[in-house]
Amino acid sequence: MAKTNAPTMKDVAKEAGVSLGTVSKVINGITVREEYKKKVEAAIASLHYEINTYARGLKTKKTGLVAVIIPNMLNPFFAALTDYIEDALYKKGLKTMLCCSDGIPEKEIAYLNLATQNKVNGIVALTYSDIGNFINPDIPIVVFDRFFENRNIPRVASDNYNGSMMAIEKLLELGCRHPVYIRFHSIFPGESDKRKDGYLAACKKYHITPDFLDMEDCDNFIDMMKQFIDKHKKSDGSLSFDGVFCHTDYHGYIFKKLLQKEGYRVPEDVQLIGFDGIRKFGGSKEDLFVSSMCQPLPQLAAKCVEIITTEDRSMIPSLTLLPVTFEDGGTTRSLKKG
Amino acid sequence: MAKTNAPTMKDVAKEAGVSLGTVSKVINGITVREEYKKKVEAAIASLHYEINTYARGLKTKKTGLVAVIIPNMLNPFFAALTDYIEDALYKKGLKTMLCCSDGIPEKEIAYLNLATQNKVNGIVALTYSDIGNFINPDIPIVVFDRFFENRNIPRVASDNYNGSMMAIEKLLELGCRHPVYIRFHSIFPGESDKRKDGYLAACKKYHITPDFLDMEDCDNFIDMMKQFIDKHKKSDGSLSFDGVFCHTDYHGYIFKKLLQKEGYRVPEDVQLIGFDGIRKFGGSKEDLFVSSMCQPLPQLAAKCVEIITTEDRSMIPSLTLLPVTFEDGGTTRSLKKG
Repeated sequence: MAKTNAPTMKDVAKEAGVSLGTVSKVINGITVREEYKKKVEAAIASLHYEINTYARGLKTKKTGLVAVIIPNMLNPFFAALTDYIEDALYKKGLKTMLCCSDGIPEKEIAYLNLATQNKVNGIVALTYSDIGNFINPDIPIVVFDRFFENRNIPRVASDNYNGSMMAIEKLLELGCRHPVYIRFHSIFPGESDKRKDGYLAACKKYHITPDFLDMEDCDNFIDMMKQFIDKHKKSDGSLSFDGVFCHTDYHGYIFKKLLQKEGYRVPEDVQLIGFDGIRKFGGSKEDLFVSSMCQPLPQLAAKCVEIITTEDRSMIPSLTLLPVTFEDGGTTRSLKKG
Repeated sequence: MAKTNAPTMKDVAKEAGVSLGTVSKVINGITVREEYKKKVEAAIASLHYEINTYARGLKTKKTGLVAVIIPNMLNPFFAALTDYIEDALYKKGLKTMLCCSDGIPEKEIAYLNLATQNKVNGIVALTYSDIGNFINPDIPIVVFDRFFENRNIPRVASDNYNGSMMAIEKLLELGCRHPVYIRFHSIFPGESDKRKDGYLAACKKYHITPDFLDMEDCDNFIDMMKQFIDKHKKSDGSLSFDGVFCHTDYHGYIFKKLLQKEGYRVPEDVQLIGFDGIRKFGGSKEDLFVSSMCQPLPQLAAKCVEIITTEDRSMIPSLTLLPVTFEDGGTTRSLKKG
């Protein structure tokens, strides 16, 4: 496939006496004035501008599309992250191809294959499949939160470990003596697993006996929570814990409702902190469901897009963690001033 | 642009002794075995298979992409609708190009232009701009909820008028005597305007004096709600209304919190119904924020996709309305049985 001396689109434009843009339009089937079209076609014929050249042109042509593979848009965390990713891509002149992959592994694979066929310029993935083996190393890809066997895929996540430590420190600062941890996790390894490591590290640092519910996510998780509460009831009816750090805001919200149903006041009897920063009705100014370690969604999205658009691939970190921040959502007490 | 007797891709395949798929791959720059590639190129040269033909091929080639233009993914209603649209498109072998157009009219126009350039196969739009004039009549497009000057654009929406009547009827059935209506609306006309028509029609039918707050959406809408409550306080502190129908679940949720802050019990003193069917944490099984006239999101999404994929365009209705259903979200009383 010798490339030497083959006429270029530029040569065609010169020969036809039209702009490069006009040649491009004719080649791509976009309407131009009939006289220009004829000139371009005549130039193509006389220069023997070849199909290979078109093919190459098509092949290297940027589609400007980036596949965003994410479980669904029903979970407000995923939806908000996608909103910010779409915005960050748009600012770089890129378009978002949305793939909601929940429970459909073959759908995920189909979208990953688009990249190999040069039909997308890159991939941002929050996926529960081990897609490492399906990835062409030349394709710009970034993975949010998950781990993969293929360790060369750059990953972006929140700093879950420090976020957990900060959650426990916040509970201690607000007067808790016995903070417990509630976690229902997916079977797939990810950065969010470090929330537990952070809890255990905080226990060690502050001489707290670890006390937690840590299970695989299941349909009857509410029953598991109820049992956990029952096990911690003292003979006078009060609870042996006074603080709860929940793995997600969702589980925090459910746990809060259970506590209240049992007659415990939140935050007076038990303070509670979740993780994620999910807001009612989704807007950035809306109420949190619970006090939370909030993930920095706009920054996480921008970082993902930065990684897939960086020219010098040698400069891309394999792991980028961004800090989370505590925000009061009504399930923690206010610090008394003075 | 005579099309007669020009060699086709099929002719090239025959001449080269390869499959049509192989020819397509070579033309589209996809890797095939070098010997096949050479055969195809030779056939193209000998048949004078022309660039016009490629251009036409490119032009009519289905990209398989549908642009979904929607304000944002932060609003859980838009996010859930997008989730179901993506799913419905996927089931038809189509891919979703996501455009979050909030406050960026030129972004919307840019995506609409993609259709004219044959870079997308269709458009599903929930937009606040009057895009009617930007639409090529040949492009399959469907608009959710909005009105446009160009009345030829097919529209899909919930049956807002009947939904409103049903909301008032439900409040009456549950014992309300004086239901009021709270609405903050956008400046853009849309099907949801018919919610007010439905309220007024119900008032007429059931001999209720209309009593409502109807304003353009504004930053201080909460103050407007407070004033409305104050105006309806009787000398004994009770309210002169006992039922509220809110234009959206969001406004319903805010109004409920205001009522509770003022010491009124919901649903004991005041019953409240919203519109939309938005759920906490977004899943289809999660709690509603308030009792609501729920829009049938999966059905609305499927209908939008059906309309842009229908071959016989003459069969497409200009307006398709789907029924909403009442669901108890805790802000209405239960009907006493027996």
